[in-house]
Order: sequence, then structure tokens, then C-alpha cells
Amino acid sequence: MAVELARRVDYPMLDGANIAYFPRIFDLAHRFFEEAWEPMCGVSYPTMINERNIGFPVVHVETDFEAPLRYGDTVHATLSIEHVGTTSCTWHYHFQNQKRESLWKSSQVTVCVDMNTLEPIAIPDDLRQGLLQHLRKVAE
Amino acid sequence: MAVELARRVDYPMLDGANIAYFPRIFDLAHRFFEEAWEPMCGVSYPTMINERNIGFPVVHVETDFEAPLRYGDTVHATLSIEHVGTTSCTWHYHFQNQKRESLWKSSQVTVCVDMNTLEPIAIPDDLRQGLLQHLRKVAE
Amino acid sequence: MAVELARRVDYPMLDGANIAYFPRIFDLAHRFFEEAWEPMCGVSYPTMINERNIGFPVVHVETDFEAPLRYGDTVHATLSIEHVGTTSCTWHYHFQNQKRESLWKSSQVTVCVDMNTLEPIAIPDDLRQGLLQHLRKVAE
Amino acid sequence: MAVELARRVDYPMLDGANIAYFPRIFDLAHRFFEEAWEPMCGVSYPTMINERNIGFPVVHVETDFEAPLRYGDTVHATLSIEHVGTTSCTWHYHFQNQKRESLWKSSQVTVCVDMNTLEPIAIPDDLRQGLLQHLRKVAE
Repeated sequence: MAVELARRVDYPMLDGANIAYFPRIFDLAHRFFEEAWEPMCGVSYPTMINERNIGFPVVHVETDFEAPLRYGDTVHATLSIEHVGTTSCTWHYHFQNQKRESLWKSSQVTVCVDMNTLEPIAIPDDLRQGLLQHLRKVAE
Repeated sequence: MAVELARRVDYPMLDGANIAYFPRIFDLAHRFFEEAWEPMCGVSYPTMINERNIGFPVVHVETDFEAPLRYGDTVHATLSIEHVGTTSCTWHYHFQNQKRESLWKSSQVTVCVDMNTLEPIAIPDDLRQGLLQHLRKVAE
Repeated sequence: MAVELARRVDYPMLDGANIAYFPRIFDLAHRFFEEAWEPMCGVSYPTMINERNIGFPVVHVETDFEAPLRYGDTVHATLSIEHVGTTSCTWHYHFQNQKRESLWKSSQVTVCVDMNTLEPIAIPDDLRQGLLQHLRKVAE
Repeated sequence: MAVELARRVDYPMLDGANIAYFPRIFDLAHRFFEEAWEPMCGVSYPTMINERNIGFPVVHVETDFEAPLRYGDTVHATLSIEHVGTTSCTWHYHFQNQKRESLWKSSQVTVCVDMNTLEPIAIPDDLRQGLLQHLRKVAE
């Protein structure tokens, strides 16, 4: 069961070609990622970072840029989990615009770390349970 | 009558001191500015940029950074208009956090331009009427 | 024959964990990409964009984040070309720090487009010749 | 005696109007600010942040945007000090392009803080001596 979130394309995302500059699409994905923790695992990412001292930095990315994100578009994001390992977790992102045209697909391996040392740690059970509830179905 | 908008502090706004990096507070202000056109003037900023070919670049800024924006905070923004001239318009921003602590105040002079030439033009009447409905009261 | 470029990690690249926020590593890669056109093809990217109306947006990315980029580090980038097709061109990036520790590897497929229409066009011959001079060797 | 530094306008600075998006001009100023510590005070900003645990966040800004920064331009920055107080220090920035056209002027009050607590501290003597060597002359 995927999580569905939406945000507008803001003006600062644009480049001189009037489309979103590609690193800022990764940035947008990270903003959705942050927002997804509460519906997925019942804990906000600020709580994880500030109080539990846990983060999930990205270590591997594969991404297809299918169509440009334009000003005035709303990005509808579908976030799901492809794999949960002991310390790592793979996220899948699918972005569509308001016409449901496919814009962007990304698979991102993240690793659970202690934010002080940046060393990998086992994904805590409560988070693991939440992530496993959002495994990707074929159609997403 | 001011416009009130709110957004969370997203992780990408933070710097190494764990507070929002100051140019990204100006960026956040611009995102609120974009969002304010619809409630203020009944036209979205994407429509103005994409269809009417009008924009309002900033030419002068005075800003006080009163307290840091932290991760997990929600920024409550109050946007009002200080002055409407023939081609220019001065915006006032006041940011508070969820505890209504004052964070940031900014006065920004913008100029109405033709987006192709970037030359100043008179503010169109429908926009002027909307802006004049949102003049700043003393208490804001 | 690869192109070697270097830039410092600037403060705005950092996140709250005091390491470079990953979308800003892609941004840094783009800044190196821009800088590489002159040594590779004898034409600056501003000239290509502003005068020849040609750009190379990214359509596919595969990336490994091997170690964090920290404040005070200098990033030494090695840029080479993996493949030149009719309209597409694949870039390879390898980032190392000042101790020559490997930080980041990325393979990025770009497509040559007319910047007005964003439609693919054949890579012009002068650019093709330059790109082919910088094909990746195994050791890079 | 001012410090003179230069950087190109990189593609990521541009917005849909093909000029630098204004918060990214503040970001560029911060990159020059970082670079200025070594010529001004003989200590790099990474050393100050990482080893001495001292930073200079901005608390007040007054800025004039005089002309757009365009792709292909080189920004020549002149940085000088307007005032050194016990804990605060006011910086002046003047940006010109390669034709020496005036682009941007900014006066920025910064406060010396302990980076752990973000509380103001007296500017250390070695830094004060360096800053005082770079007081702004009228012509800058």
C-alpha cells in the first residue's frame, strides 16, 4: 500500500529552460520522503532526527526522468517500499502531474544510521513494521 | 487585511548548525509570495508568469532575522502590502513559529515587469485592486 | 582522456548532519558538467545555451554515494564520456576528496535538445568530436 | 582594503526568466563570505566552524538588486567591513559583472556565536584584527 502525497512545482525549482532543474527533483523527492514517515510509520521525520537521532541517508539511486516538471503543475507522488533489509531500505518514487502523465521514477537505497556517527544500525522494529506495510505492488 | 499561510521547515532548509540557512529563508518567503497571489488578487502566479507574462522581481530588501527556524517547526507567515506605486509594490513578511514566537521580518520592494524584456510596466488594474485590499495594518 | 576539475565543499551544501545533502551533490556535478564543455569541446556551456540554443538535460541516472562530503573538503572530479549516440551522450563522474578517498560515482545519460522545444536533435559534429576525445578508460 | 573575489554564474542560479533567482544571490554572497576569511583573517571558515566552533550568522540585511546576473557572466565581488562591534560585525558586498556594471549591493550584520549554543560571544582578537584591516573605504 503506497503513500500518496502532492506538492505544487514552486518557482525556485525552475531553470532557464522553464522546467525543473534535475537536482531539485531529487530535493522534492526528499521532501516527500520526510512527509511519508508519519503515514507509513506513525513517527515524523523531525522526531526521528531530533529525538531518536536516526536518519536514512541515500547510498544508491537509479532514476528515470520521463517528462519535464513545469511551473503550475502539481506533482502527485506515490511512495512505496521495494525492500527492507537489516540496516537498509529501498524506496520507490513515482511522480505524475495533474493529468496523470508519468514524470519521474526513482529507486533509492537508504541506510539507517545513528546521526551522530553516521554508522549503520539495524532498523528499529517499529519502523520496520511500518515500512513493511508499504511494500510496492507491481502496478505502482 | 493580511494573508496567512503556513509551511513546515523541510530538512533541505537546514545547515550544519541545524537551523535554516538564511538564503533559504528568502526562498521560503518567495514560495509564500507565489501562493499569496491567488488569495490576494484572484490569479495564480503560474498564470501570471505563463499566460500574462508578468512578474514581480525583487529590487530592494530589508530584513531582520530574529530567531532561528528549526527542523520540526511550522512557519506561519503573514503577508501584507506596505505600498503600491505605479510600477512597484512593497511586500511585508512576518514569520512566526508554532508557538507564535517571532522569527523573521522582511520588507521587499518588487517591480512589475514584462517577463520577456524585464522592463518595468504599470501594475495592471486587477492586480492593483487586489494588492490594495491587503495593505498592512500597524499590528502586523 | 578524462577532464579533471576541483571545487571546495561550500557551506550551503551541508545539511543538519554536517555532510553534503545528496541533491546538492547532483547540483555540484552539474556545475562540473558545465565547466567541462570548454576543455572537452572548446565551447562554453553558456555559449551553447545562450547562442547555439542547445542543451543536454539528464534523462537517466545511476549513482553510488560512497562516502560523505564534509565541510573543508575539496572535491576532485573526474569527468569522462561512456557513450556517444546519435542524440544521447552518457557522462561518468567520479568524485574523490583531497586524500583521494572515493566519494561518489555517477553515470548520467543526457540528451541533446533544442532548448526552445526541448525536442531531441542530433549531437552537432563539433561537439561529437570533442566528446569522443574523452571516452572513459577502464581505470577511471 | 577590500577583498576581491570572482565566480561564474552557474546554471543552477538561474530561474525561468534566465536571470539569477534572488535568494541564490544571497547564497553566492555567502560563498564569497566563506572564501574571504582566509585573506582577511588568515583562517579558513571551515577551520572556524569545524575546529574553533565559531560562526557568524546573519541577523540583518539591507540589499539593492541593481541589475540581473545572467548566464555566462562572471561576478566580481568586493567584500569589506563596515563596522566591528563587540560581538557583531557588518559586511558590505558589491557585485559587478565582467563589464564592471554594478549588479548588487548588500550590507549584512553578522553576530559572532558559539556554534553549539548559537549564543553571541565576543569576536576573538585575531579575527577582530583581521576584520579591522578591511574596513570599507568610501569609494567601495
